[in-house]
Amino acid sequence: MVTIYFTFEPREDLKQPLLAEFPQADFLFDKKLDVEKLAQSEILVTYGEDLKEEHLQHADKLQWIFVASAGIEKMPAEAIAKRNILVSNVRGIHKKPMTESILAHILSLKRVLPFIYEQQQKKEWNKKARPTELNGSTALIIGPGAIGGEVGRILQAFDVHTIGCNRSGKEAPYMNETYKLDDLKEQLPKADIILSMLPSTKETKHMLTREHFELMKSSAIFMNFGRGDLVETDTLVGVLRDKLIEHAVLDVYEIEPLPADSPLWDLNNVTLSPHFSSHSSRYLERSLDIFKPSLKKWLNGERDLENKMNILRGY
Amino acid sequence: MVTIYFTFEPREDLKQPLLAEFPQADFLFDKKLDVEKLAQSEILVTYGEDLKEEHLQHADKLQWIFVASAGIEKMPAEAIAKRNILVSNVRGIHKKPMTESILAHILSLKRVLPFIYEQQQKKEWNKKARPTELNGSTALIIGPGAIGGEVGRILQAFDVHTIGCNRSGKEAPYMNETYKLDDLKEQLPKADIILSMLPSTKETKHMLTREHFELMKSSAIFMNFGRGDLVETDTLVGVLRDKLIEHAVLDVYEIEPLPADSPLWDLNNVTLSPHFSSHSSRYLERSLDIFKPSLKKWLNGERDLENKMNILRGY
Repeated sequence: MVTIYFTFEPREDLKQPLLAEFPQADFLFDKKLDVEKLAQSEILVTYGEDLKEEHLQHADKLQWIFVASAGIEKMPAEAIAKRNILVSNVRGIHKKPMTESILAHILSLKRVLPFIYEQQQKKEWNKKARPTELNGSTALIIGPGAIGGEVGRILQAFDVHTIGCNRSGKEAPYMNETYKLDDLKEQLPKADIILSMLPSTKETKHMLTREHFELMKSSAIFMNFGRGDLVETDTLVGVLRDKLIEHAVLDVYEIEPLPADSPLWDLNNVTLSPHFSSHSSRYLERSLDIFKPSLKKWLNGERDLENKMNILRGY
Repeated sequence: MVTIYFTFEPREDLKQPLLAEFPQADFLFDKKLDVEKLAQSEILVTYGEDLKEEHLQHADKLQWIFVASAGIEKMPAEAIAKRNILVSNVRGIHKKPMTESILAHILSLKRVLPFIYEQQQKKEWNKKARPTELNGSTALIIGPGAIGGEVGRILQAFDVHTIGCNRSGKEAPYMNETYKLDDLKEQLPKADIILSMLPSTKETKHMLTREHFELMKSSAIFMNFGRGDLVETDTLVGVLRDKLIEHAVLDVYEIEPLPADSPLWDLNNVTLSPHFSSHSSRYLERSLDIFKPSLKKWLNGERDLENKMNILRGY
């Protein structure tokens, strides 16, 4: 009997149907990773933040890790690769909630919602703001993968021109134009919105420098919904202090949680979202919707699971 | 020579091209309505709030009123109809900015932007909110005209099921289903979002009662972006105090500006937008884009102008 070890506890209304659907499997649930339970398990289901290299020494049976999250940078990649353990994640799951968060932030800024909320708090009827419009603008999406493509699809519905920048420069879905990351600098001056969805890799770490921001329009909105090490925090603070761009919306940071003494807290041309733009009250339900068909395949001896990933490459 | 009287002053960069394009017309500009100037004019261009019945006695030459706004309820409708003066407005102009505002408010609530802004003000990293998702929900659009249709188009891009309610029940663009206004009550329990775009007419005044809100889901968001007299303020306050619904977003009110002592200011399950969801820094530019082709037609003797309206019917 296959043993499946969850290092978190799903809600009862999600857990029971899972148990009922797979009576041929043995499920273990825990609130944190227990080495003994791991040692008995072929399959580990984790949010990806608890597994350490030393745990793997005891995980002799482990063959598949299902990561119920997109980020895997806290996982012991090399040790996992060496053991040839299959890793899959819930890549697609973030697509819709995250796209909705990104659009919420863009539209909120364009249609002056922060101003509306502020006036309401003061109980003042005040129209002295200048809402602008999203339609007719140009968005540059750096790293247009599954989420970036979905953002592109919605932006196009709003009559926004979309430019993608990816490694290969090959055409990406819902991008009106696509260029190589190497040609990023030439695209920056065209964009009203610059959105990064890049993962954290050797290549992307501190990839954006002050020079990149100098190339952006002074009216541009910069959004980082990929990983926080894309720009050095000091660079970003300098760019915002010097008002090189109009506004930044950040969901990710070099250090998370964002330290209480970070100068970012003191700026008024930045929106600080606490890395939860992909959160959703429907998150776990959806993770299991991805896990279950994969588990069915696994139990049938198939190994071409959905969202199988290369742990060393990072995606 | 045709005399065109503007009761507002366009910016120079918009005024000069207008004068240059129509050298055969005589333009008068003023910051408020002057009876003598009106008396000389065939065409009046107004935001629709300054013309009174007594002014018409002096406006012997007046044949066309171009209203650079959507609402005409402050205009002396019967006197204008009696004189057979043609009225046209800028109906289409609000479509895009207003749709963007409506989507901004919906997404902001779903993706907890007010919470994010509040935590940022407190300089706190706090994820303790439960963002929900727009996709998969159902929206009921009461009065799906030009703006409602555009909202429907975008909502459908977000995978929202759209239900329209209009007078005739005839199929409306971007509505998955359409029903008669008479059957509104049967549709209310289905909707996660209820958006009214209705104009102010005899039929729509105080049309929504507490009973209607009792039929809505307790998780529903009610949005009024049509006219404020759709619901009595006291009814609305009662509904929100009793938490019959989750949240209301209002852009219009029975009395505008909303009085400082309105109990609406004290509620925390309502967003109060000061009737400017259609505002845009591109507003006047767009009004003139509608006015100019109509003026060209007018000078050619044509009278089938864009957005010609029935002033008695109210739209």
